[in-house]
Amino acid sequence: MEGRRDVIEERDVSRIRAFADGVIAVAITLLVLNIEVPDLPKAREDQLGEELVDLIPSLGAYALSFGLVGRYWVVHHRLFEDLRSFDGLLMALNLGFLALIGLVPFSSNLFDNYHGDPIAAAVLAGTLGLAALTNMLMVRHIDAQGFWGPDARRPPEPFAGATSIAISAAFFLSIPLAFLSIPLMLVVWLSVLMLPYPLRRLGRRRR
Amino acid sequence: MEGRRDVIEERDVSRIRAFADGVIAVAITLLVLNIEVPDLPKAREDQLGEELVDLIPSLGAYALSFGLVGRYWVVHHRLFEDLRSFDGLLMALNLGFLALIGLVPFSSNLFDNYHGDPIAAAVLAGTLGLAALTNMLMVRHIDAQGFWGPDARRPPEPFAGATSIAISAAFFLSIPLAFLSIPLMLVVWLSVLMLPYPLRRLGRRRR
Amino acid sequence: MEGRRDVIEERDVSRIRAFADGVIAVAITLLVLNIEVPDLPKAREDQLGEELVDLIPSLGAYALSFGLVGRYWVVHHRLFEDLRSFDGLLMALNLGFLALIGLVPFSSNLFDNYHGDPIAAAVLAGTLGLAALTNMLMVRHIDAQGFWGPDARRPPEPFAGATSIAISAAFFLSIPLAFLSIPLMLVVWLSVLMLPYPLRRLGRRRR
Amino acid sequence: MEGRRDVIEERDVSRIRAFADGVIAVAITLLVLNIEVPDLPKAREDQLGEELVDLIPSLGAYALSFGLVGRYWVVHHRLFEDLRSFDGLLMALNLGFLALIGLVPFSSNLFDNYHGDPIAAAVLAGTLGLAALTNMLMVRHIDAQGFWGPDARRPPEPFAGATSIAISAAFFLSIPLAFLSIPLMLVVWLSVLMLPYPLRRLGRRRR
Repeated sequence: MEGRRDVIEERDVSRIRAFADGVIAVAITLLVLNIEVPDLPKAREDQLGEELVDLIPSLGAYALSFGLVGRYWVVHHRLFEDLRSFDGLLMALNLGFLALIGLVPFSSNLFDNYHGDPIAAAVLAGTLGLAALTNMLMVRHIDAQGFWGPDARRPPEPFAGATSIAISAAFFLSIPLAFLSIPLMLVVWLSVLMLPYPLRRLGRRRR
Repeated sequence: MEGRRDVIEERDVSRIRAFADGVIAVAITLLVLNIEVPDLPKAREDQLGEELVDLIPSLGAYALSFGLVGRYWVVHHRLFEDLRSFDGLLMALNLGFLALIGLVPFSSNLFDNYHGDPIAAAVLAGTLGLAALTNMLMVRHIDAQGFWGPDARRPPEPFAGATSIAISAAFFLSIPLAFLSIPLMLVVWLSVLMLPYPLRRLGRRRR
Repeated sequence: MEGRRDVIEERDVSRIRAFADGVIAVAITLLVLNIEVPDLPKAREDQLGEELVDLIPSLGAYALSFGLVGRYWVVHHRLFEDLRSFDGLLMALNLGFLALIGLVPFSSNLFDNYHGDPIAAAVLAGTLGLAALTNMLMVRHIDAQGFWGPDARRPPEPFAGATSIAISAAFFLSIPLAFLSIPLMLVVWLSVLMLPYPLRRLGRRRR
Repeated sequence: MEGRRDVIEERDVSRIRAFADGVIAVAITLLVLNIEVPDLPKAREDQLGEELVDLIPSLGAYALSFGLVGRYWVVHHRLFEDLRSFDGLLMALNLGFLALIGLVPFSSNLFDNYHGDPIAAAVLAGTLGLAALTNMLMVRHIDAQGFWGPDARRPPEPFAGATSIAISAAFFLSIPLAFLSIPLMLVVWLSVLMLPYPLRRLGRRRR
């Protein structure tokens, strides 16, 4: 949108990092609001144990969403750690990424309230898939504009962004899977929590 | 209120920046609480797809408000990046600015719940218009007191604050427009997301 | 509790500042959740204007609470800016201060929902009065332990903490006032938003 | 998970600290949402005083949870202050720790709503006990990998992590206690707010 002449320097990059960290920290903490304290009438308060057992899927959804948003924070963190400069398009992409992460408390709540429903699962997968896609677009733009700092640990193309592409693909491919089998879809999601490391290492070895 | 003798130094400015970033990051993330997960009875759970289609305006309001608050963060960020000192009046104006940004989750929720109603639209436009006006007052005060740092990239009067004036004017003018046509008003709002860049460039060229 | 041998250094102080800023930024932003969007049935949606007029006291309570918490942030900010070291008791007092500020969204909501009721007003005044008292205790402890940094701008006793004492006294004295006249009490509260500056200047002149 | 070759440096550690601080600051501030403003009908508004007396246990639960999360922040703060490097496993453990702290607003709300019920108390004790256990695992891993910075004030094994072990043990042992006597359990919890200091001093003396 503005080209390299108008780039923002190191000082600004650190504040953009702090803002992104703030948004992600708030979003990840709002996830807890999705777990509802059982509202038992006085006469049935001895059934609290059973009610809490019913909350286990909600706790699972909390742990899964917390882990996934945490993983995205790590990915975003690695991306922005090595940035030296910035432009208007990157700012817009970054806001889009944050808007999608900020949406996770909603998507996760939907997924939890309708946890047998493939449509609800598709909404959460779509939110996270789009966020990974936006991250990949940021990597490509940073590469194209040469915004990396002098001591960036990141390898150049074609491996930069491989993690984002893999995460994005996993989520989008899990959407049709959800209509076949929710447990199978969950296996794909959980693999996202493990996947990034080997891919990144591969990229480094080839450099 | 206190004049230049009592100004606060660089060290403090960075903490004021961090506080403002925190408030804006929380406000922007609270926007997600406005999107309500459909509460379908068991018997109608197969209608989730239709219910989610009805949520599209809410998602649109979320995206719009997130984008606008994000734009304000960028404007505020640019303003405070070049500050060297501070006084009591600037502190008060800054708090007023943050109080208006902190109000956006309410205004946006109102706009979303009554999205055909020009009064609700006027409340959101008024909140954002007043925030832009406060930003403009901050620019003027910083100019008048000479609070810019030595390496400020900002041009002096009359162009400083042009972005704020344009944003402020756009929002206030959109209020009567809302009573004629909500879609027309939305066009004005969306233009705010695009407008700042050319104006800022103009100011720079003239320097 | 631990004495000067075990004090924490500059590096830690900056992180304690950041944590305090985070808590205050979240608390101040949660205030917006107290303003409830009117929930009109479809048939009465044309009465939105009247409903919004009824929200004006809520907006006033929001502005007042935002301003007061903002003032407390400034006071806390000035206190911690000049700290060089820290001990366990100061950490505990600081947590107590933050717990009271974190309580303001509740107290403010109570005050707003029962805005003719002196008991509700007394709860808000008590919360803010105790926070100012805790701040005063922190000032005394920092003075007594010599925790100020080498370039502290703060005057030593007896004026250090004068602002906190004045704010604390104003809130506690406003509690009986609330039972006589709520508007009179509000005048005292609003004066807190203005008071600190002259007192601080006085302290400086005497140094 | 990745070994020492792939550790992250000082620059990253500071951002991980900031993220953790953000999550804990939001979680501690969300605790206030558990205190519900009484919803009296117009005709019974003169009973506000009595209703507020009924809120005292909620205020107590707020103060207790705020104090405990605050203590955990201090423990986490001390742990991360002396870190020089980081790996994938430590990142995962840290996320697990934050997920447990992020769960406290729920557990605390449950404890408050069912405050005579040992099951509800056990959930809060379990959340906090697991968080302390995770903290202990982080200390062990940091020790084993030699991630401490050159000027770490922390003693090496066997005392490192003694505070975490004591806190963890106190919470897990309080769970059976809750079924005997809730007040006795509260005594154990309150002791956690006092315990860490002597233990830490002990560890230092032995070095």
